Amino acid sequence: MPLHGSNEYRAFRRDLHRHPEPAWCEFYTTARIVSALRERDLTALHVGADALATGDRMHVPGDDELSEWEVRAREAGADPDVVDQLSGGYTGCVAVAERGDGPVVGLRVDIDALPIAESDSPDHVPAAEGFRSENEGYMHACGHDAHATMGLATLDSVLDSEFAGTLKVFFQPGEEQVAGGRPMAESGHLDDVDHLFAVHIGLDHPSGEVVCGIDGFLAVRHFLAEFTGESAHAGARPEAGRNAVQAMAAAVQNLYAIPRHADGPTRVNAGVVGGGTATNVIPEESYIEGEVRGATTELADYASEHADRILTSAAAMYDCDVEVATKGEAPSAKSDGALADVVGAVAADADGVTSILDRGDLGGSEDATYLMQRVQDRGGLACYVGIGTDHPSGHHTDEFDVVEDDIAVGVDVLAGAIRRVGAGEL
Amino acid sequence: MPLHGSNEYRAFRRDLHRHPEPAWCEFYTTARIVSALRERDLTALHVGADALATGDRMHVPGDDELSEWEVRAREAGADPDVVDQLSGGYTGCVAVAERGDGPVVGLRVDIDALPIAESDSPDHVPAAEGFRSENEGYMHACGHDAHATMGLATLDSVLDSEFAGTLKVFFQPGEEQVAGGRPMAESGHLDDVDHLFAVHIGLDHPSGEVVCGIDGFLAVRHFLAEFTGESAHAGARPEAGRNAVQAMAAAVQNLYAIPRHADGPTRVNAGVVGGGTATNVIPEESYIEGEVRGATTELADYASEHADRILTSAAAMYDCDVEVATKGEAPSAKSDGALADVVGAVAADADGVTSILDRGDLGGSEDATYLMQRVQDRGGLACYVGIGTDHPSGHHTDEFDVVEDDIAVGVDVLAGAIRRVGAGEL
Amino acid sequence: MPLHGSNEYRAFRRDLHRHPEPAWCEFYTTARIVSALRERDLTALHVGADALATGDRMHVPGDDELSEWEVRAREAGADPDVVDQLSGGYTGCVAVAERGDGPVVGLRVDIDALPIAESDSPDHVPAAEGFRSENEGYMHACGHDAHATMGLATLDSVLDSEFAGTLKVFFQPGEEQVAGGRPMAESGHLDDVDHLFAVHIGLDHPSGEVVCGIDGFLAVRHFLAEFTGESAHAGARPEAGRNAVQAMAAAVQNLYAIPRHADGPTRVNAGVVGGGTATNVIPEESYIEGEVRGATTELADYASEHADRILTSAAAMYDCDVEVATKGEAPSAKSDGALADVVGAVAADADGVTSILDRGDLGGSEDATYLMQRVQDRGGLACYVGIGTDHPSGHHTDEFDVVEDDIAVGVDVLAGAIRRVGAGEL
Amino acid sequence: MPLHGSNEYRAFRRDLHRHPEPAWCEFYTTARIVSALRERDLTALHVGADALATGDRMHVPGDDELSEWEVRAREAGADPDVVDQLSGGYTGCVAVAERGDGPVVGLRVDIDALPIAESDSPDHVPAAEGFRSENEGYMHACGHDAHATMGLATLDSVLDSEFAGTLKVFFQPGEEQVAGGRPMAESGHLDDVDHLFAVHIGLDHPSGEVVCGIDGFLAVRHFLAEFTGESAHAGARPEAGRNAVQAMAAAVQNLYAIPRHADGPTRVNAGVVGGGTATNVIPEESYIEGEVRGATTELADYASEHADRILTSAAAMYDCDVEVATKGEAPSAKSDGALADVVGAVAADADGVTSILDRGDLGGSEDATYLMQRVQDRGGLACYVGIGTDHPSGHHTDEFDVVEDDIAVGVDVLAGAIRRVGAGEL
Repeated sequence: MPLHGSNEYRAFRRDLHRHPEPAWCEFYTTARIVSALRERDLTALHVGADALATGDRMHVPGDDELSEWEVRAREAGADPDVVDQLSGGYTGCVAVAERGDGPVVGLRVDIDALPIAESDSPDHVPAAEGFRSENEGYMHACGHDAHATMGLATLDSVLDSEFAGTLKVFFQPGEEQVAGGRPMAESGHLDDVDHLFAVHIGLDHPSGEVVCGIDGFLAVRHFLAEFTGESAHAGARPEAGRNAVQAMAAAVQNLYAIPRHADGPTRVNAGVVGGGTATNVIPEESYIEGEVRGATTELADYASEHADRILTSAAAMYDCDVEVATKGEAPSAKSDGALADVVGAVAADADGVTSILDRGDLGGSEDATYLMQRVQDRGGLACYVGIGTDHPSGHHTDEFDVVEDDIAVGVDVLAGAIRRVGAGEL
Repeated sequence: MPLHGSNEYRAFRRDLHRHPEPAWCEFYTTARIVSALRERDLTALHVGADALATGDRMHVPGDDELSEWEVRAREAGADPDVVDQLSGGYTGCVAVAERGDGPVVGLRVDIDALPIAESDSPDHVPAAEGFRSENEGYMHACGHDAHATMGLATLDSVLDSEFAGTLKVFFQPGEEQVAGGRPMAESGHLDDVDHLFAVHIGLDHPSGEVVCGIDGFLAVRHFLAEFTGESAHAGARPEAGRNAVQAMAAAVQNLYAIPRHADGPTRVNAGVVGGGTATNVIPEESYIEGEVRGATTELADYASEHADRILTSAAAMYDCDVEVATKGEAPSAKSDGALADVVGAVAADADGVTSILDRGDLGGSEDATYLMQRVQDRGGLACYVGIGTDHPSGHHTDEFDVVEDDIAVGVDVLAGAIRRVGAGEL
Repeated sequence: MPLHGSNEYRAFRRDLHRHPEPAWCEFYTTARIVSALRERDLTALHVGADALATGDRMHVPGDDELSEWEVRAREAGADPDVVDQLSGGYTGCVAVAERGDGPVVGLRVDIDALPIAESDSPDHVPAAEGFRSENEGYMHACGHDAHATMGLATLDSVLDSEFAGTLKVFFQPGEEQVAGGRPMAESGHLDDVDHLFAVHIGLDHPSGEVVCGIDGFLAVRHFLAEFTGESAHAGARPEAGRNAVQAMAAAVQNLYAIPRHADGPTRVNAGVVGGGTATNVIPEESYIEGEVRGATTELADYASEHADRILTSAAAMYDCDVEVATKGEAPSAKSDGALADVVGAVAADADGVTSILDRGDLGGSEDATYLMQRVQDRGGLACYVGIGTDHPSGHHTDEFDVVEDDIAVGVDVLAGAIRRVGAGEL
Repeated sequence: MPLHGSNEYRAFRRDLHRHPEPAWCEFYTTARIVSALRERDLTALHVGADALATGDRMHVPGDDELSEWEVRAREAGADPDVVDQLSGGYTGCVAVAERGDGPVVGLRVDIDALPIAESDSPDHVPAAEGFRSENEGYMHACGHDAHATMGLATLDSVLDSEFAGTLKVFFQPGEEQVAGGRPMAESGHLDDVDHLFAVHIGLDHPSGEVVCGIDGFLAVRHFLAEFTGESAHAGARPEAGRNAVQAMAAAVQNLYAIPRHADGPTRVNAGVVGGGTATNVIPEESYIEGEVRGATTELADYASEHADRILTSAAAMYDCDVEVATKGEAPSAKSDGALADVVGAVAADADGVTSILDRGDLGGSEDATYLMQRVQDRGGLACYVGIGTDHPSGHHTDEFDVVEDDIAVGVDVLAGAIRRVGAGEL
């Protein structure tokens, strides 16, 4: 990070860390990124609705919740003009820098945070050094603050070097809910990308280790099933009710019993359920927030079709209605070997890299796959890179943290790889 | 039983007892009754298909089973010409005797037996005295042999007395499966009946006790639900199956959970279930033989509608088909007080009657209710009479038996009541 | 209400109506009643812990909630010394007035309110006349404000007349949760009561109608089942979880399938359920707030034993733990005819009474039954009296209200009956 | 097959094909094999109980069924003295031929048949050429007649050549039920085996193809769960029953919902279920014949433990008892590469071999794994060899057949491999 110096990037990362925001509420985060990008020499900067296929957004919070986060962002000092642009939950942005003839290379980073209350232990560096979350109950517990910083610093590094071509950096909202990948993938901004990199820090890889190409993304669909029946007094008129909790329970029992598939792993979970209003009232409403996954997109679709049929039939069984909405979704994907090879070659020469793995398995879900798939479907290549860091506790825990120096390792590897593919060295 | 003497009736009853036959297989029984009736001076005798709305028959056995019983009846000496008339499972008959002007009075008795192996204990009178069941595995364990005998003897008694009017005796098949009441009720022969009596012996009432009017019939529906899915190898292609046993199990669980009804008792039972072919094959077929009941016809309908929806939805849940057939059915009914009063008045003078109860509760189901309802719907009156007997063990057990002298008590009470209503003494 | 005048009672009732409080939080209400009672000439006044078998309290809120209501009561002007006595959720009181030789007569009234937001419609009298609930979200929607007022006014009326004996008025907390009856019944204060009256206003009976003796109380048990399993990432380690939502769903399905009982109606409801934390996490915790009922205490016990076994087995099925706590309970009970006859005789002469019903069916649950049973078990008599009122909307709805003049009808009937039994006129 | 000529082997195979027998009923088959072996120059021949750890037999039919098959075998001409030795279901045998110093080499073949009615289509060779099954309803539909023939012919071939060492041929009963592998593995006869070969014909590989080492055996457990409750009249006393069908249905629903395991595939199937006696009787008995599988023995154990807990808890939920018996079982296993290499080398030179696959996946279950594991656990090597054949229809279908010439290919490959490992050419 020669140009702007690591102090700037550290401050930038810590600022984001202090202001963690969930899906579609990344008002402060986006504004902060946009402010920084405006200081760069860009060809274009697409903000908010201009960066998204807005109709494809999933899992958008209600207006009240959006407003609350918007107000909070303004109070925290976000540029009010930028926040105006983002209003209504249109967060994220795409930076475009054209530098003469050459391929279009993309880098995707995600920017959202998690609903986890951050540790205030003195052993937790953000707490000890004063950049712990100021949005109580929310936390950058998956390193997206580092990802956004890598996006900015990699842009700087590439633009500060001999690079012929176009670089696009995608600052994607709503990854944790697998809610933001599709609208960004469908925005049109991916359509001319020849080579796409995505990056994740940590993933149980230590500092100094680089995973050149990650596969093993489970395709996933998050759903919300809302059952509606009819209430009645449970003692006086039990027959007058249409019991939404019975419908929900029948659905739960049978969802987990979706037949296994010989082609590969599937998953089902009824993660959050609820229903009913009072002990003595036949429940009128209930819901299931659940998910299905598959080792391939086809396997997830298989499980998803079964889930839909079970939810519908369980409702019918109790004369209830059910609405099933998709709240998040991501396909499976594979990293292209050609790009992974480039990453490996760059990493071999990079400072701070002590271990290089050709391949790795995510073993979870991620909606970078939407962007990867978009590029691959149009003939391009895509690669998901892992940058190790000694994180003191697991992802999605309240003491997760990254080693800040490893951000620079990621920037070196990504910028190097982008330069190489820009130069056609594939 | 003055005319023909009790010896004849005893022989008749024991002959029927030796040849118990299940629903729609009462070939020997019907032929024996018809032979006896042909010796009487009747206006008309409707046999088999002429006694039934044939399309309303329920729970008819397959052709092989029917044939087997038909052959057995012929071998046991049934009149072959009558058996020809009954062929195909058209059993039962209606005897009509017109005796001048007066009301049309009906008497309904049932004639079928149960799939119970009769005791061969020396304490069991039919075994000791040589008229134990010759159709191994079947038994008159509910006294219908006595009922048929009462039907014949009451006819004799009424015709041998001053009776002005028309007497119709309905020898109904298939009561145990609640399968024969509807086709006889819909036959047309009930349509001009002004007053209908039905009778049951025993019911835990001792010898000498008469119950003038029985109520408390649970309306009932027997159903057979057959699920069809698709088989697949459970190890190699679990996803290729559509699992009929999962559908059945989901149905069973939810059938019992049909909401209770504040208006009165309901019942549900999945009495016989099965499915599947091999441990390692996803089951393609399954079935439930079940029933629903209600204290009123409305309550049984309520439970029945829920059951249908649950069966259909459980099939849909596993992408299976289901066919639900009604295999037996009976409504609820109430005895008319005016007829019960006549029974009480007659019983007060009858030999052998030592206790008279105005009312009793059946607490079970019975398809005499179809005939009662038919008469009542058209403005007539109906009454279900209980004739006590010291039965040594419970109904539907292998040592059930009746005290033969109590048959004569029933005949006296029924014939007396028929004469009174014939004479307009209501 | 001759002595103190109806204005005082109206003000008293409206004051209680403005301050509705749920079970064990009746700090203001109890303090207000105690303050009024202290102005009367009583032999004894047992307050809070002295009025209860404290270990038998059910469904006691957490300390935070109790404190909040206590503070609110103090802010609303409740006598701080009395509130001190009630601190910790020991609400309710028992007033004792000895007036020479004679039987001990009890009157039980309940004092708690419901978690219902009161209507602010101008058609709703409390809203129009300025005594709508000041505890937003809570409401006297079942007339317990009128009951408490009847308790006070009946005491005044009896003491103001020729009454020989002892009168005890039980101001019982926590009826809506069937949580307060047992601790008051077990307090010892019922043990010398010879005759107990309880009273309810409304119940769909119009103004002017008195129901002398109410039966048909469904015995009830409220339970809270809390399941604990183990969480795991639903995608990465599904086998590592022990799924508390699957356990809960299995329990729900099978709870509703508890077999019907031939002896009479039972009820089951899983009224409020929930579980899980996130779509992608195997749920570690879940709960069911449910109830079972029976037409008799035995039938409720039958259903309760089945429920316990099902909850335990469902937890075991998923290797989870479950704790099942009883949160409320009430037996069935019957009004004694002798007392009901006294009520009828008094009502026949009472002003404003235009219709007298000997008997009525509650068709729901009520924990006055604990007090009734206590008295009856020790040889006394008990009677639950209904006082009609033209309530504009149903009990437990946000526009429920009573006609204030009907409170006086209740007082006349109750005081008259208490005087009669005091005089031995049974 | 130079020594005895292919005619003898063809006749032998066709004789076995005409007399298919299920697990533990292979009386004719074993007797026929023993008769043939007695004509060979063996060191030892262990028959029936001498070939088995008799206490480890699983899924043994009842005495009546065993007797019936024994009688049938005698009638078909089996050597009565041998049948005497097998009486009681102790089938199978082990042939031992010592030929000087050298390793102990084993060959395992299975000999039982399936409950499938064989096609009588003229297109089906056994039907056209007169060796269709004479045990109607049973069929060699998996090629075990060919396996037994290979066992005999390979023995001949090896003994007819330069072979130094000991050859043991295991003719194993009860493979289709995974019932016979364990008792033979535990017999002691495997304990000195240094190298074990097992073989299967077909498996969708064409004539001329050899699979040197097969893996991918799913570990499996077959279980029979028998539930016992208490019957009651469904209309009159529903509460008096303890419903074994509800218990079974709850078990079925939850068995399929056993959580997936991240370490690899598992399977569950409730393949055959049933219960109950009559529509109007609360079911007293029910059963599930089911299975669990796993890609490894550990995974099958995981599923098996869950299944046991679910079966037990489902019974407890309905106050029923359940007995769970293991009816068949097999672990997973892997072929050793060193032996597979030997097979490959031999196959490369064998007549009739046109395609050689190093590895293959069974994708199903097989209890040769018990014998393989026994040898491997004691430091030996094991290898499961596939011999292709153009089977006209799938395994376990009624037109399955093998190309008889492919038996000779198998013999050449196996005998060649045995000679090589005998000679230490590993």
